[in-house]
Amino acid sequence: MTQRLSPTDRSTIRRNAKRARTDRDDLHEVLDTGLICHLGLEIDGGPRVVPTGYGRDGETLYLHGSSGARSLREGGTGTEICVTVTHLDGIVYARSLFHHSVNYRSAMIHGRAREVTDAAEKWHGLRVISEQLAPGSWDHARQPDKKELAATAVLALDLTEAAVKIRTGGPGDDPGDIEANQAWAGVLPLWTAWGEPEPADDLPASFGIPAHVRDRRQPAVQRP
Amino acid sequence: MTQRLSPTDRSTIRRNAKRARTDRDDLHEVLDTGLICHLGLEIDGGPRVVPTGYGRDGETLYLHGSSGARSLREGGTGTEICVTVTHLDGIVYARSLFHHSVNYRSAMIHGRAREVTDAAEKWHGLRVISEQLAPGSWDHARQPDKKELAATAVLALDLTEAAVKIRTGGPGDDPGDIEANQAWAGVLPLWTAWGEPEPADDLPASFGIPAHVRDRRQPAVQRP
Repeated sequence: MTQRLSPTDRSTIRRNAKRARTDRDDLHEVLDTGLICHLGLEIDGGPRVVPTGYGRDGETLYLHGSSGARSLREGGTGTEICVTVTHLDGIVYARSLFHHSVNYRSAMIHGRAREVTDAAEKWHGLRVISEQLAPGSWDHARQPDKKELAATAVLALDLTEAAVKIRTGGPGDDPGDIEANQAWAGVLPLWTAWGEPEPADDLPASFGIPAHVRDRRQPAVQRP
Repeated sequence: MTQRLSPTDRSTIRRNAKRARTDRDDLHEVLDTGLICHLGLEIDGGPRVVPTGYGRDGETLYLHGSSGARSLREGGTGTEICVTVTHLDGIVYARSLFHHSVNYRSAMIHGRAREVTDAAEKWHGLRVISEQLAPGSWDHARQPDKKELAATAVLALDLTEAAVKIRTGGPGDDPGDIEANQAWAGVLPLWTAWGEPEPADDLPASFGIPAHVRDRRQPAVQRP
């Protein structure tokens, strides 16, 4: 059954409310097709916006980083954080500058993260993050040892309080501008594309490119 | 002459300091090749991270949005904000999960924005933002009228306090893992690609695609 987002005051979209989505599937889709998020939190009395990797399992978002990183340490103390994932899908050209826009899919999650200290959940969280950024690597590469685990902090954020905003389609020009027919109007689509895998300099030439890397060479995010 | 970034305490990069850049040209390059930023600020006692358009002119970053948007209104009151622009250039596959990474270029700017109220500077700021997101549109499309200008807020943020972090190249694996030769290592490059322009449904078929749209169909960000 489809679950709905239940917006709180701060996760209620007021600007361009027609772009708001209230289906949890939309939230999951935006998160699952992304590669990095922007983590916002207050540090030393001011806001900080840090790009970082993440992964989703059900209604939990996992973040990780060096246990020495300020953002991870602060984020694990139960302070309010905001995590935003944005896909830019196209530039919308309108007859007027005012109606120029972008097509995008974005998710904004509010909450207090907890640092994952349980060994089994930490292991699971790392696997989830790894599968998001490099699917297949968890089973292919060497898994973390004790020292590496200690050097890594994992945060968990509940997806309860989230807002999703999606814009698709062409420009919303004024009737007068459409009639005047003085400027081009339409969309220039944008997406994230993969290049050819580049083996490391110190990798033996005989080492073939494994399927989980080779088969990723599709558009990372399909044109919606 | 090349200008250097002069980091303050909070714009000094401590984690992976080898990735820190101190040249203002690097800051400009990261900003000039981006399309959207993530604006962070405190709203109602919690952090908020909002994706939005921007443009740079010299050492000033311009942001804009609906004058009704909460983030723009709060951001113009002189509160601390943080603006981050991130390019994801590739996934770095290592022999160990621990050394998996991403290649990226990111800029983080700290400061207090001011709302641009001077009519000439507001006009200029809008043009700068427009040229960043849709180069050529300012001279091609209908420019803002009085009512549209009133509905738009423009913020200006000084680029004085900024941090730039860039990671390039292959994985930094441990010698033991390199020797063991058990996993593929290398980089899967990523970039933002343009699709074919899609004219609006209500555009006459005879309206050709103008050069500033047609000629943009190159990779938005070249592989570094």
